[in-house]
Amino acid sequence: MAFSDKLRAAQNRTNSWVCIGLDTDREKLPELLREAPDAVVTFNQAIIEACADIACAFKPNLAFYLSHGSTGIEMLKRTVRAIPPDVPIVLDAKFGDIDSSARGYARFAFGELDVDAVTVSPYLGADALAPFLEFSNRAIFVLAHTSNPGATQLQDQVVGDAPLYLQVARLVRGLGGRAEAGLVVGATFSEQIEAVRRVNSDAILLIPGVGSQGGSLEATVRFGSTSSGVGPLINASRSIIYASPGRNYAQAAREAAIKLRDEINTLRASE
Amino acid sequence: MAFSDKLRAAQNRTNSWVCIGLDTDREKLPELLREAPDAVVTFNQAIIEACADIACAFKPNLAFYLSHGSTGIEMLKRTVRAIPPDVPIVLDAKFGDIDSSARGYARFAFGELDVDAVTVSPYLGADALAPFLEFSNRAIFVLAHTSNPGATQLQDQVVGDAPLYLQVARLVRGLGGRAEAGLVVGATFSEQIEAVRRVNSDAILLIPGVGSQGGSLEATVRFGSTSSGVGPLINASRSIIYASPGRNYAQAAREAAIKLRDEINTLRASE
Repeated sequence: MAFSDKLRAAQNRTNSWVCIGLDTDREKLPELLREAPDAVVTFNQAIIEACADIACAFKPNLAFYLSHGSTGIEMLKRTVRAIPPDVPIVLDAKFGDIDSSARGYARFAFGELDVDAVTVSPYLGADALAPFLEFSNRAIFVLAHTSNPGATQLQDQVVGDAPLYLQVARLVRGLGGRAEAGLVVGATFSEQIEAVRRVNSDAILLIPGVGSQGGSLEATVRFGSTSSGVGPLINASRSIIYASPGRNYAQAAREAAIKLRDEINTLRASE
Repeated sequence: MAFSDKLRAAQNRTNSWVCIGLDTDREKLPELLREAPDAVVTFNQAIIEACADIACAFKPNLAFYLSHGSTGIEMLKRTVRAIPPDVPIVLDAKFGDIDSSARGYARFAFGELDVDAVTVSPYLGADALAPFLEFSNRAIFVLAHTSNPGATQLQDQVVGDAPLYLQVARLVRGLGGRAEAGLVVGATFSEQIEAVRRVNSDAILLIPGVGSQGGSLEATVRFGSTSSGVGPLINASRSIIYASPGRNYAQAAREAAIKLRDEINTLRASE
């Protein structure tokens, strides 16, 4: 099944555009878990179980696992395995390398881990993306405009007739391959979401930056969907998974995810 | 010791600007090793032992290890441990993420692995680089102009008064922090090396693309050094480590490294 079909089915089944970022930091775990050897995996499993019917996707960020070395990669693998097979998984890794290196990263994401999609950086050009696009039924999300304050330093600089992030949105439109190519656009930059949609109506959008980073949901909802009606993945990490520092952390995460889903759905209904 | 001092000492001791890329692919190993369970580490250890007095640095690329999952990260760790402590190690990972994710990657590189330097991508702006710069006696190498054909797609686009890769070279000039900040410029783009040097005379250059990729050594030697005389890291990977597919692979790698070192030194002498 194509990635977009799997995502669309998950969005319909859950009535949700919420993507939950599994950015699990051992230091931030509820105290009752912190000392357990398997704390990160136990925590993730509980969050996944509590939220799988509210999330259209889960997005673990490689950095939080790689920081623990090989043990962390095992944690990541066990986390991915805990996610039900019909829920899409995006590995947030922002890979950007060429040739055999890019192939190595693709093999890790789509082979070793067997996730559905991976985030990639456009700085090296299309040949750095090509090895990922050889995989059927997978997707890449190319960074166009990120959610951090420093994003403007390069991404908003005008190149020819348009800012860099829009050149990336155009470049992605022209990519061929077996996998699908979406775009990352931060919710903290509403105008940029609209602008991206204007130059690329087909790319699925992964939108970080709501929740803790304070991005606005309105532009996200208004311009998020593709022309064929696949909704965006609206990602929140910390505001959901650390909703409570206590014993009730999984239930609190579920409630935070429901709250975000409902806020999004209220805006969708008023469109 | 500051990274630049460690590198300068290694360059003086070895009389070499050659950096050896440990891009070790199990499929490309000599046949006599290929089936051994520890083949990658055995191979790397032999290359390191044969070449440590010819190389001013070693540069393992994360992709080749991560493609084997957690086992690969252990291989990488054992490879790094096999490198003598006075030879600088650059982890080629092209990390580019923000906040706690960037901190996670920095912790992996400078804590868990304990390498001297890491390559990073500039696309997300300076705040994605800051967490790496908090570490004393370490360095980052920021991608300015990469060696692949697709590099021109974004990196050569003119932004304001200069191409994007030169904006990156300027941005790096202004970075503060405890770690040092160098630049990656591919040997396949000679004019860009000169141009980078014109806007940033202080940054140490990491120059991939000689060897298999066919980049020219001349510009590399002419414009490679910093104003304070720290030479570039001129990286070759495949042309050195796969110099022979036979039993003599380590000796062949040593000879290929000596040949490159001598070509560079002949050009240095004629400057």
